[in-house]
Amino acid sequence: MPPPALALVSGQALPAFLLCGTLLVIKMYVVAVITGQVRLRKKACSWRGPALGTQQELQWSFLADIFQAFANPEDALRHGGLQYCRSDQDVDRCLRAHRNDMETIYPFLFLGFVYSVLGPDPFIARMHFLVFFLGRVVHTVAYLGKLRAPTRSLAYTVAQLPCASMALQIVWEAARHL
Amino acid sequence: MPPPALALVSGQALPAFLLCGTLLVIKMYVVAVITGQVRLRKKACSWRGPALGTQQELQWSFLADIFQAFANPEDALRHGGLQYCRSDQDVDRCLRAHRNDMETIYPFLFLGFVYSVLGPDPFIARMHFLVFFLGRVVHTVAYLGKLRAPTRSLAYTVAQLPCASMALQIVWEAARHL
Amino acid sequence: MPPPALALVSGQALPAFLLCGTLLVIKMYVVAVITGQVRLRKKACSWRGPALGTQQELQWSFLADIFQAFANPEDALRHGGLQYCRSDQDVDRCLRAHRNDMETIYPFLFLGFVYSVLGPDPFIARMHFLVFFLGRVVHTVAYLGKLRAPTRSLAYTVAQLPCASMALQIVWEAARHL
Repeated sequence: MPPPALALVSGQALPAFLLCGTLLVIKMYVVAVITGQVRLRKKACSWRGPALGTQQELQWSFLADIFQAFANPEDALRHGGLQYCRSDQDVDRCLRAHRNDMETIYPFLFLGFVYSVLGPDPFIARMHFLVFFLGRVVHTVAYLGKLRAPTRSLAYTVAQLPCASMALQIVWEAARHL
Repeated sequence: MPPPALALVSGQALPAFLLCGTLLVIKMYVVAVITGQVRLRKKACSWRGPALGTQQELQWSFLADIFQAFANPEDALRHGGLQYCRSDQDVDRCLRAHRNDMETIYPFLFLGFVYSVLGPDPFIARMHFLVFFLGRVVHTVAYLGKLRAPTRSLAYTVAQLPCASMALQIVWEAARHL
Repeated sequence: MPPPALALVSGQALPAFLLCGTLLVIKMYVVAVITGQVRLRKKACSWRGPALGTQQELQWSFLADIFQAFANPEDALRHGGLQYCRSDQDVDRCLRAHRNDMETIYPFLFLGFVYSVLGPDPFIARMHFLVFFLGRVVHTVAYLGKLRAPTRSLAYTVAQLPCASMALQIVWEAARHL
């Protein structure tokens, strides 16, 4: 069994990146759990909407509802379909938050790792990771908590700045050593 | 040309991770191919539904259908729109399976790689990778094969356990070497 | 501060991979910016459609529109809802392009990195990266520019070929060193 690899880079950029990156992955797992909880809550009140099929159809059930409503518009209106549509938007919101995480955090996992092993100044590197980490946490809170605009957009933009910085530095270094 | 890098870590965690991770990426490619096949099948029977536009509009055509149906609800009902909606749900199902893969397999590619180079016990590491690999294969089969609940949810949860374990170990190691 | 790590692998596969991979991540960021611009343009013309809620509801507003139209179908028809649906398809198109990037470029970031450190022939490796890079750029241009079929599908397929090649080589190498 080899010695712990991180001891060799203690105090440098890599451990800070691994901490931020992994905590953000855990944060994404939490969003997934919240999405499931919102779905269960919707299921509990589904007696007010049109009849739903198997448990599998409840996945992305906001789309299932559209199809249901299409199939039986008269039922949707008779069973208070409009209120049901409102709770659909909550699942939809969770899925959008998760998708935005996939659009931003996954690239960070790549850029941050490459940037870390390129030997950046440890303090500057940590600032990059910290800004991204805090920006993404605020983004999720703003999205799921429905904070008013432009909190979420601002957090998104701030978090993209260190990513753009890292990307440009990687392009520069890689192009020099082609 | 340098010697094959994997020879240095033969029998350790990394080759097992690379095997599982890459096979799962190939599995995702297969889901993408299946999605395309389902789309083509839908296209073949589209004469029963409302007229569809260009080939590009067939992408995510279940949404195009909604818009079509909205535009011409009388046509949708007249041309057997309800049956057409059923086949939409098949494409939708493939896309959900693929999205769930993106939500789980991509983080595994990051967590598994970092975990592997931290020098874990090879046997325990392989158990982590094997559980995740089998869990995700069962998940895809259960999703696309419409196996009854809770097969898919169970496979999802089981596969997330080694990911949570690896994430916590990475956080612990990274925090120690900040 | 350690020496730049890339100097050790100058002229080999890794710098070429990092250049292609990072440029494609930047390309994805550009798609995200374009999506935001299309959304803003839609917002500007939203007076023609049904009344929309807060700025947050404009996210994935094509779904919000569906719900709106469900709630008030008579309004949708009265306020030129069909034209409004057409502009929805533009945001939808951007989201599909971005999603397809997530389905293909993220696996490339993993496969390309592992393939690069396995010590491939530098020329062959660069051809892999170049084909994928060009294929994905053409894919995005064909998607957002609505080029006629099968330009986009062809670019997608061509870009998947080097990915499949790298995946099979990684599986082979990993299986040999289990």
